[in-house]
Order: sequence, then structure tokens, then C-alpha cells
Amino acid sequence: MSLKNTSPDKLIRLNKLQTALKNLELDALLVEDSLDLFYLTGLKLSVGKLLISSKDCVLFVDGRYLQIATEKAPCQSFLDSTDQFLGFCSQRAIKKVGFDGRHTSYDQFVKWEHLYSALTFVSAGKFFKTIRAVKDEEEIAKMKKSAALLWRGFEHINTLLKVGITEKEVAKSFEIFCLQNGADGLSFESIIAFGSNGSMPHYRSQNVPLKEGDAVLIDIGVVLDSYHSDMTRVVFFKKEDPYLAKLYAIAKRAQKAALAFCLPGSTFKQLDLAAREVMKQEGVEELFVHSLGHGIGLETHEYPRIKYDNEDKDVVLESGMVFTVEPGLYVPGVGGVRYEDTVVVTANGYENFYPEH
Amino acid sequence: MSLKNTSPDKLIRLNKLQTALKNLELDALLVEDSLDLFYLTGLKLSVGKLLISSKDCVLFVDGRYLQIATEKAPCQSFLDSTDQFLGFCSQRAIKKVGFDGRHTSYDQFVKWEHLYSALTFVSAGKFFKTIRAVKDEEEIAKMKKSAALLWRGFEHINTLLKVGITEKEVAKSFEIFCLQNGADGLSFESIIAFGSNGSMPHYRSQNVPLKEGDAVLIDIGVVLDSYHSDMTRVVFFKKEDPYLAKLYAIAKRAQKAALAFCLPGSTFKQLDLAAREVMKQEGVEELFVHSLGHGIGLETHEYPRIKYDNEDKDVVLESGMVFTVEPGLYVPGVGGVRYEDTVVVTANGYENFYPEH
Repeated sequence: MSLKNTSPDKLIRLNKLQTALKNLELDALLVEDSLDLFYLTGLKLSVGKLLISSKDCVLFVDGRYLQIATEKAPCQSFLDSTDQFLGFCSQRAIKKVGFDGRHTSYDQFVKWEHLYSALTFVSAGKFFKTIRAVKDEEEIAKMKKSAALLWRGFEHINTLLKVGITEKEVAKSFEIFCLQNGADGLSFESIIAFGSNGSMPHYRSQNVPLKEGDAVLIDIGVVLDSYHSDMTRVVFFKKEDPYLAKLYAIAKRAQKAALAFCLPGSTFKQLDLAAREVMKQEGVEELFVHSLGHGIGLETHEYPRIKYDNEDKDVVLESGMVFTVEPGLYVPGVGGVRYEDTVVVTANGYENFYPEH
Repeated sequence: MSLKNTSPDKLIRLNKLQTALKNLELDALLVEDSLDLFYLTGLKLSVGKLLISSKDCVLFVDGRYLQIATEKAPCQSFLDSTDQFLGFCSQRAIKKVGFDGRHTSYDQFVKWEHLYSALTFVSAGKFFKTIRAVKDEEEIAKMKKSAALLWRGFEHINTLLKVGITEKEVAKSFEIFCLQNGADGLSFESIIAFGSNGSMPHYRSQNVPLKEGDAVLIDIGVVLDSYHSDMTRVVFFKKEDPYLAKLYAIAKRAQKAALAFCLPGSTFKQLDLAAREVMKQEGVEELFVHSLGHGIGLETHEYPRIKYDNEDKDVVLESGMVFTVEPGLYVPGVGGVRYEDTVVVTANGYENFYPEH
């Protein structure tokens, strides 16, 4: 094993991939996605190739990164060149290489086929999407810190809500507050939606002023130490809209029903169906137009997507998986609600990163 | 023509693509990249398919976007479904479809081949990369505003430079200043590099304190109204390092030499070679380890890349092209300098978005 004993967590991750390789009918895995490279090597590389075979892991980088890779990577590093790469593969009899077809562009694939014609490239996108699903203790600690900062940002938003302030002003003030308090940036463009604007799940905040009686939908996230957070709450400003308040209560109950299945051994389908059952009983299931949630970590949207009828539906919950649970109900022209938490699966259940509100 | 007369600039852009289609040996172009969709329709869609044939332009979107697309898109919009898409292609005898292989993932391509087996998909990445190269008046006006805000951010940075402030603190304060003054966000993670850290062209700011005599490399950009800006200056803090100051003067001269070729009819290769000639005469050409610059617009790095020996080398400058010109000289362990402006090509020359400094 040409692995360097510098970062034990990275070694564990690389070894896990080497073990997985045995069941993949591949000679090697080629990792090229920046976030996966960061996850597996600890290095922030805009470009690089990590080749994982059953015997070795080797990193190929360009001149900009050679020094840092040599010093810090958990495996041997070389200057990337066609000859270097092919020579390495040939020495180890590597012929069939699995790549991440979800992220590698078609043009890149064609270029590889041409440059490395001695090799066969096979998309292993379905495997690659799973590799960051189970978070280790250090990752979970970082995600909790990111969530704690986000909650402070949410509390800050609550101090801002006054008649006349606009959605955009709230979003901007939230962003600045988080940056001032240590965030690296936002996980995504904040969704601050007043009144009927809440009916659009992917709304973009506008110059709309707040008025009494508006429901305020707040879907926010920050990045801290590379880890993303994500949470949604609805605040009823001064006066509660009875219809939307009723929908919000249903969304909360639906979330609780899903969380009751949140423990190792459940399938993600069970979570979604449990939430939908509550909505069905209330006759509002058709107002739920998106999936129940998604994995989260180095990206806001990671594997798996939680929906009863999608390709991840039979994935089994494992301790260490972190994902959102976010039932929402939307009435075009009237408004919408969504109640979103992020939870980590524990040995016997789950831990929620956010307080109830 | 099923184009709606709602946004004349978008109609001009769509018509330009329809004209280009005649020379491409394709029946239609399939636009899927979010930024290209925004450029061509004015809509911010996370997912969508714009199909451009010689007769029609049609937009396919999912349920979330159908209402806004029907109201605002410059062409007809439909709910995206396999049948809808295939039916449309069949009615117009569309068989050979060009897609953007630079951005479409390999897995997506395979999915299309399966779903739309009646069609042949051909990568037209080399065509797609060119479509936003020439900016119109409205775009240039927006880019100038973005640059003006960036310059104010640069002036703000100059007020911050005091012994002991760290690179990260400067970067964070700059970001907050720009957000407070109207920026949507940053074009890229700011590079604030003190002293010898300037030798790494893609440095990430750290908790390094400023000291007297440090050269401060400042490579920054903001996004305003969707348009990116990008600029680099070196500030010598309190005391000028004679060697780095000499290199900086050479970089400035190299930039001037490149700008002398900045007018319609030149090739990008000529710009790069002119800059390199100055460095060669000074015996420092080998310290210039990256390309001379890059197009900029809705992204920070757009077509073309400016380098004497790359695939864009023979591209001819046209009025309305906007790009950076950024010679840099780097001495590992000692420091580095880069002098970067963004310019727009005019009828007879160019206009620089930034003052000299």
C-alpha cells in the first residue's frame, strides 16, 4: 500500500473504496470531481486525477498543485501527463477504469477515449454517488457547527421582520450576518418569500415589502468549514393566516411521522410514505410537489434523494447518514409552507440539528 | 417563427443561433446549460431544454417553471416529457441534434440516447462555447457597473491594510463591503496573498498577518446583475520590495504591449505573444506560468482562453468581446505579481474597465 499515514480519516476512506472495488468488476476507480478529491485527499484541487486500484492509490496533478500534493496528500503524487498516467496503468495491468459519469462531461469522456485508448472507461456514477453518504464523527461535528451558525442566522432574521422590509433586504442582511459570524458563504441563494410567494418551492427573493399577516417562508443554509447546512421555517408575521397555519401544522405532523422511521434499517421510501400518509388523511397530498428531502454534506444536495418512487427509494438508513426532512404544501396564488430539518442517523434513531420552532 | 416579441435582445440571440445552425450540419441545437438558458430566454431555470431548429425555438420545462416560461420566455413553452419532446422533433423532421458536450454529463448523454433513440446526439461543444463571446450594449453596460463596484471594493481593501490584519480578514471585509453595496455575490473566492504567498497563482487566503514590506496581491471579482468582474493589483505595503516592484513594472509593460493589439482583426495569439516578448527581453518569460487572460461575462472564465499555443489562439477579436489581460510573474518562495484588467473591444481599439494603479 503506497498510502501515507498522514491523515487517518482519508486513509479509511481510500481503503473503503479499495474494498468496494472488488465487487465492481473494474480494475480501478478514477476520481476527478473536486469535492470527491477533497473528501478523499483533504486537498482543494480544481483539477486532478485520483486513481484507486486494489494495490495503490495515486494522485496526478498539474504543476500548480504538485508541491502541496507531495506534502499533504495521503498517497503518492505525480505530475499529470498522458505518459505518466498510462505508464502507471500499464505497470499495474489496469485496463477497465470506472469514472463518475454524473460529473464527467461527454467531451471529457471522448477526450479520454482518445488519449488513453489502451484503457476502457465505464461509468460508475451509481457507485460514486454513494461514497460520501455516511459521515464520520469529524464530519458530523462540523455539520452541527454549520447548523448552529445557521440557527443564529435564523434568529437574526426574526429580529429583522418589520413592515416594509423587502425579501431581498432580509436575504442580504442574513448573508452579511453569517459572513460576519464565520461562515465561508451560503449553501444556496436564500429563499425569503412573503405571502403568496411562498407557493413556489424554488422562489427567488425579490423587492417585495413585508406586510402584516404575511406568512414568511425562510429556507436558508450556510457553508462552514466546507460543510453545508439547510433548514426551512415559516414565520407568521403579526397575524396568523388560519389556512396556511393549518397547512404548516400538517407539514410538521408529516415530518414527525417520517422521523418516526428514522433509524438504521428503515428504507428512505418508508420515510416519504409516512409523511404522505399524514397528508393523505388531511386530503392535501396533492399540494406536496417535491421529494421529502436529500442527503447533505460537502454539497447541499447529495445522495440520496428521498422519494417513495425514485431510484434511491430502497436505500437503507445507516448510522452516520445526514439528510433533510422537508415536507411542504403549496397553493399557487395563495401561499405555501415547508418545515425542514437536517438530521443525522444514530445507532438507535436520529439527532435533529435544529430546535423546534 | 414562433418567437414572441417580448424581449428583443433574446430574439436577436435566438435568431443568431438559427442562422449559425445552417453551417453546422445539424437539424437542431439543444441548449441545457443554465447560463445559456438564461442568456437566450432571460429565465433563471435550474433545469430546462431549449430546442432551436431552423423553423422554431421551443422551451421544455418542468412543472415548477411552466407558468413563468409561458409568460416570459421569448418562444413557446411546453411541459417537458419524453413524448412531448419526441413529438416535436418528429413533426419537424429533426433527427440530428447538437448538444453542449462540455457541460452535458456522460450519464445524461447515455440517458438521452436511451430515451430519445429516434434521435442522434452530436457534441457541438466547440460551437456552444462561442455563443456568448460578443456582448451587446446592455451587457457591456452591466459589466461596467460590476467593474465599478469592484473598484470601490478595491479602494475599501486599501483602507484595511494595517500591520497584523490577516489575508482572510481582508477577504471577508471585502466580501461584506461588496454585498452591502449591492453585489449579488463574489465572482470567485478572493485571492488576498501577502508576501511570498503571492507566488501561487491560485492561492487560497489564510490566517496570515500583514507585515511591513509585504507585497499584497489582490485578485478579486464581484457579481452584479448576473455579470462578473475580475481584476488584480499588487499593493506594496509601506515599503516596496525592489525585486517584486521590478517584476510588477515588467508585468504592466507586458500588459500594455498586449493591449496595443487589442482591436478588431487581431488574433488572441498576437496579444499573448506581445506580452511574452516584453518578458523575454527582460529574461523573465519562464516566470509566466499561466495564460494571458480569458473571456468574462455571465461566468468569470468564458471563451476564449488567451494563450499563443491553445485551441483559441487564432480567434479574431471582434467589437463587443470582453476579456481579461493579466500577465503575472511568480517566484516560488519569494512572491509574485499579476496585473489584470478587463477590457471590451471597440470599433477601433478597446476600453479598459479599470483605472491604472
